[in-house]
Amino acid sequence: MADVILVLNAGSSSIKFSAFDVEGDALELVTHGQVEALFSAPHFVAYDRRGEKSAEHSWGEGAKLQHAEAIAHLGAYLRGHGAGHRLVGVGHRVVHGGARFTKPVLTSPEVLDELDKLTPLAPLHQPHNLRPIRIVAERNPGLPQVACFDTAFHSTQAPLAQAFALPESITKNGVRRYGFHGLSYEYIASALPDVAPDAARGRTVVAHLGNGASLCAMHAGKSVASTMGFTAVDGLMMGTRCGNLDPGVVLYMLDELGMNAREIEDMLYRQSGLLGVSGVSGDMRALLASSDERARFAIDLYVHRIGRELGSMSAALHGLDAIVFTAGIGEHSKEIRQRVCEEAAWWGIELDTEANASGGPRISTASSKVSAWVIPTNEELMIARHTLALIDDKREGASA
Amino acid sequence: MADVILVLNAGSSSIKFSAFDVEGDALELVTHGQVEALFSAPHFVAYDRRGEKSAEHSWGEGAKLQHAEAIAHLGAYLRGHGAGHRLVGVGHRVVHGGARFTKPVLTSPEVLDELDKLTPLAPLHQPHNLRPIRIVAERNPGLPQVACFDTAFHSTQAPLAQAFALPESITKNGVRRYGFHGLSYEYIASALPDVAPDAARGRTVVAHLGNGASLCAMHAGKSVASTMGFTAVDGLMMGTRCGNLDPGVVLYMLDELGMNAREIEDMLYRQSGLLGVSGVSGDMRALLASSDERARFAIDLYVHRIGRELGSMSAALHGLDAIVFTAGIGEHSKEIRQRVCEEAAWWGIELDTEANASGGPRISTASSKVSAWVIPTNEELMIARHTLALIDDKREGASA
Repeated sequence: MADVILVLNAGSSSIKFSAFDVEGDALELVTHGQVEALFSAPHFVAYDRRGEKSAEHSWGEGAKLQHAEAIAHLGAYLRGHGAGHRLVGVGHRVVHGGARFTKPVLTSPEVLDELDKLTPLAPLHQPHNLRPIRIVAERNPGLPQVACFDTAFHSTQAPLAQAFALPESITKNGVRRYGFHGLSYEYIASALPDVAPDAARGRTVVAHLGNGASLCAMHAGKSVASTMGFTAVDGLMMGTRCGNLDPGVVLYMLDELGMNAREIEDMLYRQSGLLGVSGVSGDMRALLASSDERARFAIDLYVHRIGRELGSMSAALHGLDAIVFTAGIGEHSKEIRQRVCEEAAWWGIELDTEANASGGPRISTASSKVSAWVIPTNEELMIARHTLALIDDKREGASA
Repeated sequence: MADVILVLNAGSSSIKFSAFDVEGDALELVTHGQVEALFSAPHFVAYDRRGEKSAEHSWGEGAKLQHAEAIAHLGAYLRGHGAGHRLVGVGHRVVHGGARFTKPVLTSPEVLDELDKLTPLAPLHQPHNLRPIRIVAERNPGLPQVACFDTAFHSTQAPLAQAFALPESITKNGVRRYGFHGLSYEYIASALPDVAPDAARGRTVVAHLGNGASLCAMHAGKSVASTMGFTAVDGLMMGTRCGNLDPGVVLYMLDELGMNAREIEDMLYRQSGLLGVSGVSGDMRALLASSDERARFAIDLYVHRIGRELGSMSAALHGLDAIVFTAGIGEHSKEIRQRVCEEAAWWGIELDTEANASGGPRISTASSKVSAWVIPTNEELMIARHTLALIDDKREGASA
């Protein structure tokens, strides 16, 4: 009977899942999918280990599905397709671990209470990440669950890289740079020694360019600095988020544009970035296909901002040996990789155009002073690995 | 009869002045001083061309002096000490020229109305900068006056360096990076060809480290990028200003700390930076003399932030040939210059400790790949030069 680990990544209106067979120390993806549009047009879809659709269900336009119902549906699907499998643990992506949780942790009511307290630091994500943990605990009280944090990988950063120049009356509330996308960076750090041993040992900037986007400066695989700060809106320009912004602009929005906090939040998180600047789309593919002048400017700004923040990251590392592209845009857009490498050519990056077109993994020439790479990220596998590591005692106990 | 140009730099509670003799194309400082603490304990002090006190007056604790009265006092002082001199023009420092005023301009009622409209972009400075222009115009209707802008030098920046990733609905209001300390940078750019010809031609980052602080990336003496953005609170950590801050922190202050816009403004502008982090002082000299651990951390963070932003500036320049220190801390603190050069040593900066101790101008070794310099700034002289250039026709007309 094969053991299975389930990975959940829950947002405000969707739950993504992946299930991994445990085979010794190895984890093999057996099914994945999602329930999306929970409160508008709920839709469940699942894929098998070959990536072919294995199940689908729609609740219809206007239906509203609670997270608990979505998880119940997912549970039924897994039981139906999981003959000969035993669910031994559930791993969850949780955006914020605060100052205390610098590693994945087995959840308990006490841990969940502590994680609830971090909601003010990530009000748009933390409650949705935590809800499924309680739902699963109610349904399967004995099942071990593990919370894996997007902030944890960055806990190795020095206090100087984490600090804002604010007084203690503010910072004592936990206002500092945490950095996010940590599970992605941790996965890349785990993959680097095999793919690019020099980059694994050296001063490497990883560019996680997805719908959210950030850079992480790593030295010998440890996070030294990152562009995302206290929230996931800082740093690089993103699909709909503004990235780095003079805080005086927020005061201007309050004072002169008469916007309130919710309107500003909506503006900075959902109306800015590629979407806001182009006025066309927050999807890089659409902008690359567009001949609109503002779409071109949006792409130019996206690349410029990566170049500028790469300078700041390299300064934190006191140099640059390698750059790694990952996540949606980083893995799939050879145009953006080429543009970024051209913008950063002065560092000594020499792009191998053919290797870039075929997707790497190495996309720089053999003589390039700074090497460049494409490595697909796998946050789900990282969560499954952490979950397996933490439940291992219990699992052996159970099968003994 | 010698012509004299008066330079005024007016803030909310002080007016600084300098008067220059015009001798052909040359300008010689003949007196300078200030009226300070206008609304609490007004005090006037003036110095002669040898830097010795030439006049002083106190209105007493609790007295309140309007800008007009202060200027009247200053006028009386200048007339009393200006035998054989003729005032031919007044130059004013004006923080914001917006998108239209990219050069100094002779003021007129129409120009002042346009400059009034920029007040929302710099509410703490613009009205105070403009008030003396109208006061002088009322008293001396025929006297030419010139407004010199702290933003103008940065108008050569490319649109990409000026843009925030915000939608047009916001940016159409003039929300972009302007950059400040432009009169200081312009002066340095004018001094570089004589002091450091290679730095004048090359990729040079100027560090204006005063009570306010910013970096300017210059290529061949033109501004390419700067750390101050829309307001003077962005970028480097300063005496009491926070510098670069995740905009999400401002939302957190609104939502979770229950602060209003004025409280946040006060926090970011007056309670943060060196003062906020150290909890001791916003004065670098006091922190350098302190053995307090938080004072040390504040200095460490100040240096770290310069190093990080130096990376971003160099990325905008696609390289770094020289760094120039100026303004209060930049000119007078050998410790901070040394710390910054050590933090930036990986760029190829080799400090000449003796030259640094004696104040330069060159403070890097002959073999240093990136050269380092100390050049005292002189914003007043820059304003006087601009004023002379713009009034020259009228002046010749007058003396004809």
